[in-house]
Amino acid sequence: MKRTIALLTDFGLRDNYLGVMKGVIVKINPSVNLIDISHSITSHNVREGAFLLLKSYKYFPKNTIFLCLVDPGVGSERKVLILKTKNYFLIGPDNGVLTLAAQEEGIEKIINCTNTKFFLESISSTFHGRDIFAPLAAHLSKGVDLNEFGEPLKNKDIKKITLPFPKKIKGKIQAKIIYLDKFGNIITNIKKSDLKNSSKFKATLNKKTIKKIYNCYQEAEDNQPFFIEGSFGYLEISLKNKSAKDFFSLADNYEKYTLRVTLK
Amino acid sequence: MKRTIALLTDFGLRDNYLGVMKGVIVKINPSVNLIDISHSITSHNVREGAFLLLKSYKYFPKNTIFLCLVDPGVGSERKVLILKTKNYFLIGPDNGVLTLAAQEEGIEKIINCTNTKFFLESISSTFHGRDIFAPLAAHLSKGVDLNEFGEPLKNKDIKKITLPFPKKIKGKIQAKIIYLDKFGNIITNIKKSDLKNSSKFKATLNKKTIKKIYNCYQEAEDNQPFFIEGSFGYLEISLKNKSAKDFFSLADNYEKYTLRVTLK
Amino acid sequence: MKRTIALLTDFGLRDNYLGVMKGVIVKINPSVNLIDISHSITSHNVREGAFLLLKSYKYFPKNTIFLCLVDPGVGSERKVLILKTKNYFLIGPDNGVLTLAAQEEGIEKIINCTNTKFFLESISSTFHGRDIFAPLAAHLSKGVDLNEFGEPLKNKDIKKITLPFPKKIKGKIQAKIIYLDKFGNIITNIKKSDLKNSSKFKATLNKKTIKKIYNCYQEAEDNQPFFIEGSFGYLEISLKNKSAKDFFSLADNYEKYTLRVTLK
Repeated sequence: MKRTIALLTDFGLRDNYLGVMKGVIVKINPSVNLIDISHSITSHNVREGAFLLLKSYKYFPKNTIFLCLVDPGVGSERKVLILKTKNYFLIGPDNGVLTLAAQEEGIEKIINCTNTKFFLESISSTFHGRDIFAPLAAHLSKGVDLNEFGEPLKNKDIKKITLPFPKKIKGKIQAKIIYLDKFGNIITNIKKSDLKNSSKFKATLNKKTIKKIYNCYQEAEDNQPFFIEGSFGYLEISLKNKSAKDFFSLADNYEKYTLRVTLK
Repeated sequence: MKRTIALLTDFGLRDNYLGVMKGVIVKINPSVNLIDISHSITSHNVREGAFLLLKSYKYFPKNTIFLCLVDPGVGSERKVLILKTKNYFLIGPDNGVLTLAAQEEGIEKIINCTNTKFFLESISSTFHGRDIFAPLAAHLSKGVDLNEFGEPLKNKDIKKITLPFPKKIKGKIQAKIIYLDKFGNIITNIKKSDLKNSSKFKATLNKKTIKKIYNCYQEAEDNQPFFIEGSFGYLEISLKNKSAKDFFSLADNYEKYTLRVTLK
Repeated sequence: MKRTIALLTDFGLRDNYLGVMKGVIVKINPSVNLIDISHSITSHNVREGAFLLLKSYKYFPKNTIFLCLVDPGVGSERKVLILKTKNYFLIGPDNGVLTLAAQEEGIEKIINCTNTKFFLESISSTFHGRDIFAPLAAHLSKGVDLNEFGEPLKNKDIKKITLPFPKKIKGKIQAKIIYLDKFGNIITNIKKSDLKNSSKFKATLNKKTIKKIYNCYQEAEDNQPFFIEGSFGYLEISLKNKSAKDFFSLADNYEKYTLRVTLK
């Protein structure tokens, strides 16, 4: 069966970087299925990449190879990893970008890819996506045994990252924003159950308030922000047919805001 | 022969939404051809989506499945449709997004997709693209019989939309803008024949005038706007190697402008 | 083996232009591999397209067909070319966009594509990508003999372009910018060897100075611009985890700037 390689990077779609990586892959394995998850991760934001991988992987076919490149340490001594999980293979730099997904799935093997015979002949110091990661993914998709790529590492030897947890104190919740999507939906780190299924709460974000929770966008009134259980599994702040990001005047570096919820 | 699924949405390319939908599709049918028509439809603009589908479908192979998601009513009671036309299959919400193309092609069958066995197990209220539409398209591409997806509907039972028609009164035409493209070309709703093949006319848009019509961009003078018969089949307002949208200072919500043409 | 068609255009991803071209291609050859190099070339910038093709082609499989459309002369009498090089086929307008790559690879044959039987039946004057170039690429990918597409041309009969060369006078270099990437890296037209492997130099660009050269981003200090040998093979001006384009306040029309380097 045709193997899928899914690509998730902060490379953007302006340059030829992504296309060249795909060229490298099909030159090695012409019969692979290439699927783009996103290439618009905020430049160098490892946590955002890890979050999108976490919320994407399980929708893909068993044995999909995920190539995840948010790599501010390119060219330095940071390791190049393949993580074998229960159902998938994750390839990326050792900076935590793979670990939210891998830990949810269960890590079965970690390989530190040191065998240069699977790299391109000439290695630049700025574009390991092309020179190292793309050829690794292509060779793996052709069935090369994991152990050929390098030596195994232990779980404790790789870098981990975490998502921010909401702080809960006496009916009050301090939450964070973990993603802003294209429609201007604000993805928080609290779940519907955190509100104890109550509709009695008051929430504030950047000096504006949210007072309602709805089950679908159409239930909402115009120009009134509301919570809705979104497709990432978290509560999102939305407006009907409008951008909540604009309504709350949020800047792009969304990680700095705190959402304060008081349960009544 | 390999089946094509063509995707047209307002999901953008920033998030993982589109990639996850593709993951869902290849998990069900790994040997499908996925082609992106556009994912940059103005958020929630059903008419714009319907227009781009109308101007795209006939270039695709017979039996292509078009998955068209501009769906401000996601999570509400709006129906999920498959339209079988003479040569194609169109899948989308019942808000008119499919109907400009379907009516031009001729509708042969309409299915109201109620059979949940073709959906993902867990259905969110905000992302039916992933949970309902993508699996439907994938199962259809594998040859599942149309009648298995739900019950047939009559043509009168689905929502229609229309493109604005130009108003013509005594040698004057009031036209509208139906699309702005990446190059800044302004696509109008009048045809070359509406000018009676005359080059004698005066047209105004947002307080500026168009006096010329050319057969190709190279015939034009610099910095002078002109009409040209564009690839959508309508007259477009263009500038040589420049953005007409910028020249006429048009805002993004192009639907509000009126183009006034006086034939001489 | 499955044939690859790689696409490089200034069409952007907003409109349906690219998707329709792909529809045209798979309608003629459903089993082709379509790979996007970039569609974000600055509108009408032939030199930028030629540069990205030059820096991409060799990473693709032998016999890949490159479809390169930056075509401000669409609809005029400019020729439609297929260039056969040692390992590849390049298709595009006769404005030089193909020639940087083709001359590096070595041109073996040039065909002036005049045989309209390989075009779509109806030819617009604004979208030859859809009506002429896409069907040509698809037919070529199915194995149609080159000579069937039209008559051969000589190398001297096609339009060439060049990249700007740095001017070197007595230990001083006047260099130009040849690309700005998504991360804000500034790609210059000088090579590491032009600095004579010395770290003793002073460079100025738009009234700010660059004093350092590093081997990888991680070596650099925060907020200090530096040279690094980039993946295009030229020296790039970068900042650690920041946009050098923003730091140097560069406008999008990067071709107007001069970088002055004094070797010490």
